[in-house]
Amino acid sequence: MHKDRFLGSENLELAREIYSVMSSHPILAPHGHVEPDLLLKNEPFANPVDLLITPDHYITRMLMSQGVTYEELSIPRADGTRSSVEPRAVWKIFANNWRAFRSTPSRIWFQESLETIFDISENFTPERADFIFDQIAEKLSSPEFLPRNLFKKFNIELLATTDSPSDSLAAHSALSKINLGGRVIPTFRPDGVSDPERSDWRASISALATSSGIDCQTFAGLMSALRNRRAFFKSHGATATDHGLASAQTLELSDSEKENLYSRIRKGPISKTDAQIFRAVMTFEHGIMGAEDGLVMQLHPGSCRNYSVEINAKYGRDKGFDIPQEVHYVHELHALLNKVGHNPNFRMVLFTLDESSFSREIAPLAGAFPSVRIGPPWWFLDSLKATQRWRDAVTETAGFYNTVGFIDDTRAFCSIPVRHDVARRFDAGYLAREVAQHQISKSDAIELASDLAYNLSKEFFKL
Amino acid sequence: MHKDRFLGSENLELAREIYSVMSSHPILAPHGHVEPDLLLKNEPFANPVDLLITPDHYITRMLMSQGVTYEELSIPRADGTRSSVEPRAVWKIFANNWRAFRSTPSRIWFQESLETIFDISENFTPERADFIFDQIAEKLSSPEFLPRNLFKKFNIELLATTDSPSDSLAAHSALSKINLGGRVIPTFRPDGVSDPERSDWRASISALATSSGIDCQTFAGLMSALRNRRAFFKSHGATATDHGLASAQTLELSDSEKENLYSRIRKGPISKTDAQIFRAVMTFEHGIMGAEDGLVMQLHPGSCRNYSVEINAKYGRDKGFDIPQEVHYVHELHALLNKVGHNPNFRMVLFTLDESSFSREIAPLAGAFPSVRIGPPWWFLDSLKATQRWRDAVTETAGFYNTVGFIDDTRAFCSIPVRHDVARRFDAGYLAREVAQHQISKSDAIELASDLAYNLSKEFFKL
Amino acid sequence: MHKDRFLGSENLELAREIYSVMSSHPILAPHGHVEPDLLLKNEPFANPVDLLITPDHYITRMLMSQGVTYEELSIPRADGTRSSVEPRAVWKIFANNWRAFRSTPSRIWFQESLETIFDISENFTPERADFIFDQIAEKLSSPEFLPRNLFKKFNIELLATTDSPSDSLAAHSALSKINLGGRVIPTFRPDGVSDPERSDWRASISALATSSGIDCQTFAGLMSALRNRRAFFKSHGATATDHGLASAQTLELSDSEKENLYSRIRKGPISKTDAQIFRAVMTFEHGIMGAEDGLVMQLHPGSCRNYSVEINAKYGRDKGFDIPQEVHYVHELHALLNKVGHNPNFRMVLFTLDESSFSREIAPLAGAFPSVRIGPPWWFLDSLKATQRWRDAVTETAGFYNTVGFIDDTRAFCSIPVRHDVARRFDAGYLAREVAQHQISKSDAIELASDLAYNLSKEFFKL
Repeated sequence: MHKDRFLGSENLELAREIYSVMSSHPILAPHGHVEPDLLLKNEPFANPVDLLITPDHYITRMLMSQGVTYEELSIPRADGTRSSVEPRAVWKIFANNWRAFRSTPSRIWFQESLETIFDISENFTPERADFIFDQIAEKLSSPEFLPRNLFKKFNIELLATTDSPSDSLAAHSALSKINLGGRVIPTFRPDGVSDPERSDWRASISALATSSGIDCQTFAGLMSALRNRRAFFKSHGATATDHGLASAQTLELSDSEKENLYSRIRKGPISKTDAQIFRAVMTFEHGIMGAEDGLVMQLHPGSCRNYSVEINAKYGRDKGFDIPQEVHYVHELHALLNKVGHNPNFRMVLFTLDESSFSREIAPLAGAFPSVRIGPPWWFLDSLKATQRWRDAVTETAGFYNTVGFIDDTRAFCSIPVRHDVARRFDAGYLAREVAQHQISKSDAIELASDLAYNLSKEFFKL
Repeated sequence: MHKDRFLGSENLELAREIYSVMSSHPILAPHGHVEPDLLLKNEPFANPVDLLITPDHYITRMLMSQGVTYEELSIPRADGTRSSVEPRAVWKIFANNWRAFRSTPSRIWFQESLETIFDISENFTPERADFIFDQIAEKLSSPEFLPRNLFKKFNIELLATTDSPSDSLAAHSALSKINLGGRVIPTFRPDGVSDPERSDWRASISALATSSGIDCQTFAGLMSALRNRRAFFKSHGATATDHGLASAQTLELSDSEKENLYSRIRKGPISKTDAQIFRAVMTFEHGIMGAEDGLVMQLHPGSCRNYSVEINAKYGRDKGFDIPQEVHYVHELHALLNKVGHNPNFRMVLFTLDESSFSREIAPLAGAFPSVRIGPPWWFLDSLKATQRWRDAVTETAGFYNTVGFIDDTRAFCSIPVRHDVARRFDAGYLAREVAQHQISKSDAIELASDLAYNLSKEFFKL
Repeated sequence: MHKDRFLGSENLELAREIYSVMSSHPILAPHGHVEPDLLLKNEPFANPVDLLITPDHYITRMLMSQGVTYEELSIPRADGTRSSVEPRAVWKIFANNWRAFRSTPSRIWFQESLETIFDISENFTPERADFIFDQIAEKLSSPEFLPRNLFKKFNIELLATTDSPSDSLAAHSALSKINLGGRVIPTFRPDGVSDPERSDWRASISALATSSGIDCQTFAGLMSALRNRRAFFKSHGATATDHGLASAQTLELSDSEKENLYSRIRKGPISKTDAQIFRAVMTFEHGIMGAEDGLVMQLHPGSCRNYSVEINAKYGRDKGFDIPQEVHYVHELHALLNKVGHNPNFRMVLFTLDESSFSREIAPLAGAFPSVRIGPPWWFLDSLKATQRWRDAVTETAGFYNTVGFIDDTRAFCSIPVRHDVARRFDAGYLAREVAQHQISKSDAIELASDLAYNLSKEFFKL
């Protein structure tokens, strides 16, 4: 890989200097999906496919788009079984479809992982795939490639996981006693409880009642139980909650309205309208709780989950068929922002998959409300060109200081350092271009380097 | 014209090399609006205006926006008459408003047509308009400029027309026996039958019944007739259907629901809701039929047709007043994609006039479903900067291999080669920049050159 | 500041030449919010804060987003009082948050104002803030910095203000007799009368009745009164009206429907639906009146006004909490454009805060209807990168000649010349790049320089 990759060609000398400042900072990863057990168990990764292909829905969805089936890729089924295709055969399919990834972030992350983690500097090609498979497999068996050693090598200062409200956080407790060279903290993610249309809704509420020891048969009880678990998470180091419903709708109801709604929904059948109202109420209530307990509210709306009924039935959630849809932040957040938007104890980060909201809604909201910050480009938008569009669209209205630094949002452990590195390289180039274009001074850019790479996350997420 | 036009300045040497690969391929034009009779009759073009101005609604709408009336341009009226303005006078109006076309694709296509087809290399200006008119007029009378000779000169391997379901395809049959140096195939376009709010709906169904010999008084009969005609088109070389309704809505109804709906609509009056439901059902059913017979389904939704009632009444359809509107692909296609989205015999190409759907909906759908491909920038978006935005927005999520190559979609015969050439030049520059920006290797770019210019169309449209 | 700022690096020599043409033209400011009394009274500005900070909601909203309260900034409250914070203390808060403005247009306008108006060429920093405050304060007390002298210095040929229908226009009458070196004309802005959900609706209608001497208890009376005042404005030099409702909805009703609606609304309570219908009717009727009296209709829809109830209650309107929302121009304008869209006496300028409408709706409408022009980037979009996106998105469909030149839309008097200068610099760079990219010729660019800087505004706004 070229040493100046993604720094751009305009003002390259300065881009290099900015990048060197950014890369001197350790990684803060305040939102992600790595399992804490991975680090707790610290077992060697099984093989290159289970490390780099199977868990990466960016990769598996692209292969499916080219006609490859999940059976051919031995993707684990919802029932826990999987086809008996050999890892090397899956690897070969991947290699033969490698061209599909040209100009995608997956190509960059994969190629960068090979070089920076496995010291494989050649281009991945169908011809060299077998050789590269062997090289990775060999390394995976060495102690250097155990999860905890990688964690240290990656220079991670903080890693936040994403956890169910009823999680015992036992793994987090155990990890807190182990020297990892950095901290692992939980994040409170109550979607299972917030969305009555999820198949696990009743089970989630039962688990919440059990874990909190609080009866959840009334809405008031449900709120008490959530408050209890939010406090429990906070006591285990959590600084944030995360909410991934289809919309950002918020709604304030009276106590009796809430009890009636909850009672109606618990009895069932659940109408489409009641489900929508309930979700809006839950997002609103978590906002209120956030203003009380200070946990930072992360809002990730606008993904139409499990779009392919067939894939969901056979392989379960998170298998590449969550498709974005429009979100109307301004209307949907009106109730919540008029309740706590000016509350100095409330903090909210808005993410979007809908670029049309960048300049129209997200930036104008974050550029006025002290509680609101703009989340970095999310999911399909976590890529070089989309990040360029994102910075271009939000910065002129909200500046840099209403953003919160980079978030990797990944389940793929080995992609953490490369994702942060690519984002830092992009930002270094961006800042250098801003200097060249007379938008900021050189000293502004140097100060921004540390802010974008480290300080903004540290401060806003209370890390 | 500059020999390196539209190749960009970043990595120009490589862009030239890529362009030379692309331009070595013949033209595949799998979707367009040239009349087969043009080639069958093979008559000389009447004059420069009827060749280059009158049929080009990009040009006539722009002239109208600057205050020129369609009467002054002698645009044919819906009743077949037209004002008696002389072609040279129309040409003069065009020339006097030439500045309105600065930085538009019309300017490029027009200027390129002059040079590459008529060997007129000077800049078009009001001062030189008369001289250029004469030069073109003179050439139009020579055999070299007869439609078939131009077809050969343009190096067209395949040209698809757009045809009504009840078309006899006699012109196509006749053309198939003539040596054109390339093939002309029909495309099945059933909008007249699908949209009960069109004034020609009942006539279209009658014609369908007549052409198929199948009674269309029941929905089941209507479906049989459509299946019959789809097979007829397929036997005449068609490989695709095309659907241009206002939305992409699809809906699955039971047989009895469909019969009731159809019966209600046939009886009339037609409610807004029934019309919407009927269109959604028809798009759904054509998807099902496409999965059966393998005709590639092209979806061109989102144009609010005949927006100006006055212009439509006086001059008829396709006169520059089809205005884009929002399309919600994800929601609207849910029914169809969950029916045949994973069917290996189903193929669908999604076009859009709504840029906000590029990264939010179109690319995520095409980057997961094996049946879905992204159509190239359509209509108002078939231009250099819009194509840059389109490639930037879709490639990072769906790559290059979920696209289908360039489509000219034109009624203006002479613009076919220049449109393809401009698109190839743009792509050559794009790929060269991707190499410079470390997104692909040079050999990737060379391979992509042929894929984007030729192979992707050839394969997906089964040409 | 660098002498070539914002001209871009591609084709810089030509950009300089184009800029020199553009900057040779005086300023036409056909839409803005400067108070005519400012020029009539011609009193010295009180201090740097009341000149540059307090009235600039771009600046105050950004400070609030960073946790600064409006009390700390001594923003005037709705009741006319304000906190007793010293201007120098407010200035210090601004300076300490100066980093928040990096890469925003506010930074550019502020820094440019310092240099071009106050001859302060150093970078603004927290360290130098006090010194700069003193320099400005000293200058404000000299005659050279009286409003009228600044008006002359700014080389303003025409400045349009924004005025209530019932305004006596006494200030305008008085100003017309004073030699300012340029004209000040009113603009008719009837939103107070058009929106029955505004708290001042009934008062606005009363004032309209009084000022016109026409009874407004019937809809017909209301229309007569509006026609009367439009004529009054026209006789005082107005050439345009301005409409800033939440949507662009237009609706044609029969006379009896209009009377019934108006009667229902006057009686109250006002339903959400009736309010929407009334606004749509009013926009429609103003369109009809515009086709009669020739006042150019400016449409500024899509701002969700006074989003923060708390800020609105305490500080009133226009305090940074107007947040954009989606606008559906195509559907909403259907009624009006089908009534007067082809009327040669009708002129309309469409503004938007919703970038997704640039290429999808605004440009296609303006590129066909002779009456419709595209307003320049508005409000949050009046910035370098947004303007680039805007020109890129609209030009290929509508060209340059369906736009109307730059509009500053500002309440900040001193920002008028710098806003125009930044816009001209951008356009100069844009045109130079278009030449480099073979989209226009050099002579096209030179002609466009004067058209974009001066002629388009002059002609379309009838200045």
